[in-house]
Amino acid sequence: MNTHFSRFLYGGDYNPEQWPRAVWADDVALMGEANVNIATLPVFGWVSLQPDEDTFTFDWLDEILDKLAEGGVKICLATATASVPAWVTQKYPDVLTADDMGVRRRHGNRHTFCPNSANFRRLSTGLARKLAERYKDHPAVLLWHVSNEYGTYCWCETCAQKFREWLQAKYGSLTELNVRWYTTFWGHTFTDWAQIEPPYRNGEGAIQALKLDWQRFQSESLLSCYRAEAAVLREVTPNIPITTNLMGTFYPLNYHEWAKEMDVVSWDSYPPQGSPPAHVAFTHSLMRGLKDGKPFLLMEQSPSQQNWQYYNTVKLPGELRLQSFQAVAHGADSVMYFQWRRGQGGIEKLHGAIMEHRNRTDTRVFQEVKALGGELKTLGEAPLGKRVAARVALLFSWENWWGLSFSSGPTRDLNYVELCRSYFVALWSLGIQVEVLRPDADLSAYDVIIAPTLSMLTLPQAEALKARVAAGATLLASVFTGLTDEFDTVHAGGAPGPLRDVLGLWVEETDAVMASEKNGVRFDDGETFEATLLCDRVRLEAAETVATYTADFYAGEPAVTRNAFGEGVAYYVATQPEARGLRRLVWSLCREKGIGSPLADGVAPPAGVEVTQRGEFVYLLNHAEPATVALAPGAWTDLLTGETLTGDATLETRGVRVLVSSPSPSL
Amino acid sequence: MNTHFSRFLYGGDYNPEQWPRAVWADDVALMGEANVNIATLPVFGWVSLQPDEDTFTFDWLDEILDKLAEGGVKICLATATASVPAWVTQKYPDVLTADDMGVRRRHGNRHTFCPNSANFRRLSTGLARKLAERYKDHPAVLLWHVSNEYGTYCWCETCAQKFREWLQAKYGSLTELNVRWYTTFWGHTFTDWAQIEPPYRNGEGAIQALKLDWQRFQSESLLSCYRAEAAVLREVTPNIPITTNLMGTFYPLNYHEWAKEMDVVSWDSYPPQGSPPAHVAFTHSLMRGLKDGKPFLLMEQSPSQQNWQYYNTVKLPGELRLQSFQAVAHGADSVMYFQWRRGQGGIEKLHGAIMEHRNRTDTRVFQEVKALGGELKTLGEAPLGKRVAARVALLFSWENWWGLSFSSGPTRDLNYVELCRSYFVALWSLGIQVEVLRPDADLSAYDVIIAPTLSMLTLPQAEALKARVAAGATLLASVFTGLTDEFDTVHAGGAPGPLRDVLGLWVEETDAVMASEKNGVRFDDGETFEATLLCDRVRLEAAETVATYTADFYAGEPAVTRNAFGEGVAYYVATQPEARGLRRLVWSLCREKGIGSPLADGVAPPAGVEVTQRGEFVYLLNHAEPATVALAPGAWTDLLTGETLTGDATLETRGVRVLVSSPSPSL
Amino acid sequence: MNTHFSRFLYGGDYNPEQWPRAVWADDVALMGEANVNIATLPVFGWVSLQPDEDTFTFDWLDEILDKLAEGGVKICLATATASVPAWVTQKYPDVLTADDMGVRRRHGNRHTFCPNSANFRRLSTGLARKLAERYKDHPAVLLWHVSNEYGTYCWCETCAQKFREWLQAKYGSLTELNVRWYTTFWGHTFTDWAQIEPPYRNGEGAIQALKLDWQRFQSESLLSCYRAEAAVLREVTPNIPITTNLMGTFYPLNYHEWAKEMDVVSWDSYPPQGSPPAHVAFTHSLMRGLKDGKPFLLMEQSPSQQNWQYYNTVKLPGELRLQSFQAVAHGADSVMYFQWRRGQGGIEKLHGAIMEHRNRTDTRVFQEVKALGGELKTLGEAPLGKRVAARVALLFSWENWWGLSFSSGPTRDLNYVELCRSYFVALWSLGIQVEVLRPDADLSAYDVIIAPTLSMLTLPQAEALKARVAAGATLLASVFTGLTDEFDTVHAGGAPGPLRDVLGLWVEETDAVMASEKNGVRFDDGETFEATLLCDRVRLEAAETVATYTADFYAGEPAVTRNAFGEGVAYYVATQPEARGLRRLVWSLCREKGIGSPLADGVAPPAGVEVTQRGEFVYLLNHAEPATVALAPGAWTDLLTGETLTGDATLETRGVRVLVSSPSPSL
Repeated sequence: MNTHFSRFLYGGDYNPEQWPRAVWADDVALMGEANVNIATLPVFGWVSLQPDEDTFTFDWLDEILDKLAEGGVKICLATATASVPAWVTQKYPDVLTADDMGVRRRHGNRHTFCPNSANFRRLSTGLARKLAERYKDHPAVLLWHVSNEYGTYCWCETCAQKFREWLQAKYGSLTELNVRWYTTFWGHTFTDWAQIEPPYRNGEGAIQALKLDWQRFQSESLLSCYRAEAAVLREVTPNIPITTNLMGTFYPLNYHEWAKEMDVVSWDSYPPQGSPPAHVAFTHSLMRGLKDGKPFLLMEQSPSQQNWQYYNTVKLPGELRLQSFQAVAHGADSVMYFQWRRGQGGIEKLHGAIMEHRNRTDTRVFQEVKALGGELKTLGEAPLGKRVAARVALLFSWENWWGLSFSSGPTRDLNYVELCRSYFVALWSLGIQVEVLRPDADLSAYDVIIAPTLSMLTLPQAEALKARVAAGATLLASVFTGLTDEFDTVHAGGAPGPLRDVLGLWVEETDAVMASEKNGVRFDDGETFEATLLCDRVRLEAAETVATYTADFYAGEPAVTRNAFGEGVAYYVATQPEARGLRRLVWSLCREKGIGSPLADGVAPPAGVEVTQRGEFVYLLNHAEPATVALAPGAWTDLLTGETLTGDATLETRGVRVLVSSPSPSL
Repeated sequence: MNTHFSRFLYGGDYNPEQWPRAVWADDVALMGEANVNIATLPVFGWVSLQPDEDTFTFDWLDEILDKLAEGGVKICLATATASVPAWVTQKYPDVLTADDMGVRRRHGNRHTFCPNSANFRRLSTGLARKLAERYKDHPAVLLWHVSNEYGTYCWCETCAQKFREWLQAKYGSLTELNVRWYTTFWGHTFTDWAQIEPPYRNGEGAIQALKLDWQRFQSESLLSCYRAEAAVLREVTPNIPITTNLMGTFYPLNYHEWAKEMDVVSWDSYPPQGSPPAHVAFTHSLMRGLKDGKPFLLMEQSPSQQNWQYYNTVKLPGELRLQSFQAVAHGADSVMYFQWRRGQGGIEKLHGAIMEHRNRTDTRVFQEVKALGGELKTLGEAPLGKRVAARVALLFSWENWWGLSFSSGPTRDLNYVELCRSYFVALWSLGIQVEVLRPDADLSAYDVIIAPTLSMLTLPQAEALKARVAAGATLLASVFTGLTDEFDTVHAGGAPGPLRDVLGLWVEETDAVMASEKNGVRFDDGETFEATLLCDRVRLEAAETVATYTADFYAGEPAVTRNAFGEGVAYYVATQPEARGLRRLVWSLCREKGIGSPLADGVAPPAGVEVTQRGEFVYLLNHAEPATVALAPGAWTDLLTGETLTGDATLETRGVRVLVSSPSPSL
Repeated sequence: MNTHFSRFLYGGDYNPEQWPRAVWADDVALMGEANVNIATLPVFGWVSLQPDEDTFTFDWLDEILDKLAEGGVKICLATATASVPAWVTQKYPDVLTADDMGVRRRHGNRHTFCPNSANFRRLSTGLARKLAERYKDHPAVLLWHVSNEYGTYCWCETCAQKFREWLQAKYGSLTELNVRWYTTFWGHTFTDWAQIEPPYRNGEGAIQALKLDWQRFQSESLLSCYRAEAAVLREVTPNIPITTNLMGTFYPLNYHEWAKEMDVVSWDSYPPQGSPPAHVAFTHSLMRGLKDGKPFLLMEQSPSQQNWQYYNTVKLPGELRLQSFQAVAHGADSVMYFQWRRGQGGIEKLHGAIMEHRNRTDTRVFQEVKALGGELKTLGEAPLGKRVAARVALLFSWENWWGLSFSSGPTRDLNYVELCRSYFVALWSLGIQVEVLRPDADLSAYDVIIAPTLSMLTLPQAEALKARVAAGATLLASVFTGLTDEFDTVHAGGAPGPLRDVLGLWVEETDAVMASEKNGVRFDDGETFEATLLCDRVRLEAAETVATYTADFYAGEPAVTRNAFGEGVAYYVATQPEARGLRRLVWSLCREKGIGSPLADGVAPPAGVEVTQRGEFVYLLNHAEPATVALAPGAWTDLLTGETLTGDATLETRGVRVLVSSPSPSL
């Protein structure tokens, strides 16, 4: 499947059914003015395309698709199945989801379909087929957009029954299930499959393996909705790539499983006001890593303000441009928006759009969008399809996230995403390129592997890590890693479970650190950092001490250890050091492997300046005060300005440069 | 309907059914001692009057009414329909309300009747008729008190069905409804009336026009309960005025609609501990404005502590007197209490009463109540029925309140009542009299019109405002005004919608300001004030800049503008300035129109001193430290002390003076 | 029933069904190594013993009981009825509880049985009988452990119906119930028993007497579950004492009623991280007082960390020992743990255990547990069965707690447990021994009686207090005491109700004090303390003023009063003074009676040092920095070290001494 596009896709969601036909012609002309080359539609068009089960009304869509095509705008064609029409749930109440008390919801809002409803499957795939057959030869259709922002769990009776069947298929026997779920705890042994229920809010909350399997089952159930539509599309339009828009660190869905079924990953980036740029970078990297580093599409972002945050500030001048180039720098081959034209009613009427309520092009937002479209044209085709040049892998696991979220103890401050991000931020601030990958990924290309609090670790995962270290890689595992297996059952002997030999130690106790207190980590040279969250007391077997605790009754005991294993080395960070401590740690590990930034001497950029290398292109993004960056030797061309730079590059606040060695191999 | 009473009504709620007959005679005698001249009963007497559907037991009420009459105590006769007896809901479960999940509540507490239950209507109007017929010639009955503190919404199936019928009547066709509700948003088009449901908590939350109509429908449904009882009372006792007790800034009911059906507005004032006196004044003014400034009744207040606040402090010596005169100063022709005698059980047993648990008259509370009753007698009849002399109108709209409360974006800090109050407080602190009116009110008598954040503004309302400005009035509109119509759909071209020409500008963007940050407003003379909440970036057409922003990328852009329009002027305050800034603004506007306080030179009173003019009477109320006030020229008589004052009036802490020009025209 | 054991019981919960048989032999050997002499099982074994209604599988239990017996480990035999098997609720859905909306819960977690379910009663007593009959002659069985941590209320239809029957039996007639419940309030008169419902969350919340009776009924319903099992056990094994594990200040159950049915009180102590040691001491004293001061069993504590707190810190070295001796010092004849071996799955897998996941004995926790077991052996039999030597009684009432929790007003800061604890802490810090007793207890042995905020006070209780004062005792009653009777109806004349003559005053008003404000209490000598929460304004009749308020309009009025009554004295503390003020008050009262600490001159120990006298043994427990304590005259032997001490005793941080006059009578 070819997902390499010949230009940056630039455009976004378009809801023509909200507007009279008179507006449509204006829209196409204005899109041209704004440098827009792609429109996503009809995301919420189901009821407009099928006002009842037996009636289809595609004329309006024919018309607007043709208009867009004539205007040179390509189509990201949505299957329109996300917003279930009222007639569907009126006729088939089983289509509505039930909440975690088992109460079926009422019609309204979005994301209301039960993923296991046979009626929903029939109707949604039916509509997808109609669309595919009607537009399979339409010249402007570039991409399929299945449904929209999947993610709502359902706790109805159908789901409960399907869950039991899924468990039967997985475990084979109740005996096996009882063992794996450790149901002897609190006398929870099941003696009949029918006794098993979803973990309702007023039901079972004590069997974490059940809760974990429920997450897997619901994520898979929703994935099977996607799969069902995708199967129809592949059958009818085998050459059009298929995606659905993901949502970053989205708890309900194991996107690692989802990405396997997507031709290209796309996602919607809505950082809340004040999000650190490194956090946004982390999410881009996570999304890119879903397909092991392949480029992705930025499917949605707001051109201006959002509407569902507590405070919905407008973006500063240049902020949209900076965020868009950040996406590109991290692997995006598109810059797309929600949405083209701001609606006049409904709950999103205060969300930013390219064409605002005042319906003029002399607004700040329209002009910024237009200018950015022009710059992307200037960049040309060369940056597209390129990969980020990373030798460091950071492991992220949805199942571990779920498992930790169910954990009762040792501290409610534990936030798995924050822990992973803290290591990413350290690397980001050093200008070191990172791929964020699942623990099951092929890690052979990575010389440094960082596994923050990978508490749930399967034996095969552990074996792969050990093999990679034995072959020469550096592993950093952090506090609370290696405790449980895929059923959230503690490995025999406790943490770090199957990593005991590679780390050369075992964990005796895990102490919780109150937010109001701190421990410390002191290195041999006396440098000391605050330590928070948890402190493992470790007992060394083969490892040596790198740093020690400074407080509590275990002051002086190991806080960071190092163990030579085969050709490689494994570090254990037994607590959560503050940011500066993480920087020291990852810098030291990377330097041992000769890894650095793409700047001069591989050194870190100034604070707030983001440096990525994607393909042969070096992206400089300034999130802070005006700065000067020392470039690697040679002449560099700034693709945006045409300037040739040697030695230094200056960056204004929110400044962006896209540099390539001059003469560039691809120019 | 004559609602001019010959003396201040003084008394309150009385629940004789809680006490043995032996206490009744004491009560009447004690009421005399306390200067009480009116008792409200039997508010919670339904089950005592009708222990089952076919049995009526009015004897006890006959007896106590006669006793009261003999003691010179008039009756505010309650229809007793607020507290539905257990036998009613046992026999007719449909009388119970359902919650916003559609779950029918159980019997208990209060306010439990479905406003659309036919059984409730039949039984409640039946009881009202029985009462009316029995007491229609009773000499002591002065006033009807229908039900009590209406306000509970119901989400039952009956209400859902009635809602559909209400919508059909309102919109005529589904096509019209779909257009007005902007249901193309998220594909919410309805194709059958039966698809429409109330906005259940687990149902539709995205169609704000639906939510708005639901508020209107429920407010009207409850009003129709009142109307049904009132119709019976009007038929049987055409000369007895009818009221029901309102509750100030009470979100669920559009009191502007309710007041149209009430002969006299009455309300229950329970300011929480520490309420600024200006806030209480605002609510009095809002209640008075419900009937365009006619006097109202203070139906309930606590003589001492409340019981449902977090902290239920006792009132300071003199505080009850000060609050009571504040009500009078703002238009009350009564001072009434909940309640006469403190009950020994139930959830309100710790709420203050005139006769406390210790059952003695030598208590502080009893003595203060008695003394205040004496003072009201001293005032005589002259102050009754008089209007506050206001040339400033402040617009308040329940529908706008609802609409803003449903808004997703731009900031959750937006509190419509607080915004309106902030302008009121500025005027109050300057001693300027204000009428708080609905946007549809006749504004011809007002020279300054203030419309804080009137986001929902209909075309007729806008036309009336423009006409008033064209004719010479001054309009002040503030940030986020004029965005939507009565369906919460954005006016074409966005804010300020139909006020664009009168304000001479359009709004390009509305930025949210985080509570932790601030912008500023700088006037030409350099005076600068903090600005919070929201900042509109405006583009001037005809308006001129009065003040500019001091921060963010739009520093220097207009923050306050002025536009000459016809004979008048329209100001736009594009953000929310701090209190001092609002004072400067409203003072400047009022001075241009020659409006000031009733004190010497129209200047502002000292901080904490409230000055109102009601009829020919000037009320001085001191909420702060001892103070001296410069009186307008001439001699003034203090009706409470008989003193004659010229030049200055001194006020102790919590001191009150009721002044009239000497010789007073009415004395 | 003999509940005097010949040695400290040392051991805890053991769940062998979670482990393969291979582990069992290791466990028994390891228990020996750890000085463990008792194991509690099979608490969660129901489904393992009875996998369906007609099948019983006791073989595994036979085997492990025999193994334990062979290893010298006694058995605390659990009836295993706490964790209802899934097959039970599948077959008999009525066994599941309903929540406070009347919604039946799903199977899962624990504590899920309806206490009034006939099916549950039949099945649970059936299993208890099976166990009793099978093991009645087992030599190792020392104690019955019925169910586990009772406490879940049920709001199902069965319970509702039983509640009505319970009310009929209690009140005889609806008329009586209506009077006692004060249902004339808000017109709540019941005219049919069937109208009465439990106080559902969406039902009746305004009748506090109903809510109070519901608490009584549910506490009794659960108690009747215990009683039913206990009756079977008493029938089959009349000589084995019976207990169930209580939970300290546990709101749902009136443990004073429960203790009457228990042969020995046992309880589970899980102080949250950072609990002041005096709070733990209070709970031990409360539990001991349930049976009027008889020794109790510490049934559970964690040997290390917990798992359900926000932060689950590990215990410091020596902390477990200190807490264990604290329990012994306060009357425990056992030191027991949850649990022996940490499970590998389920929600408690991160809870501490003696054998941790790493399955080794060279851990800190195992070694501390083992050492403590050795010390308890050293103590021998003499300290067992002894009573704390208290002449001060502090009254605590579950019914008052419930009543106050339902109170609407005067302040939501009122926390009855904290108020009682504050007086206890004052006494504890002075080294004065206190018995915490119910108001109905026999108080004849106590010379000082402290009744903090005993708002609900029955006439017989008041009579007993008055008689005790008349006979010479000192009573201290504090703010808000004596307001209501057992139906939460205010006594005629208000507070302090039937204590008016003994206190020599009446309460005119009760003012709430906001947390952000303070009043003060000034004694004659000028010493002044902060006062918080509530301030009664009292009117003296016979009492004299001891201290006065310093602020608010009642500054100078009495805040603490003293009234001579018969041979005794009654103090009234009309507000809540700060801790130092309470210390001054209780010290003064106790000195008048010659009561002090068991140290030299009866003076207070240094801060943080706890001193108790249990029988002839003086326990010194140091919760703070190293300290020296002045001993009472004579030579003292430290039973733990064998040292002989005179004059002073030094204590390390977390140091413990068990002293007895040398030569000790029992050594």
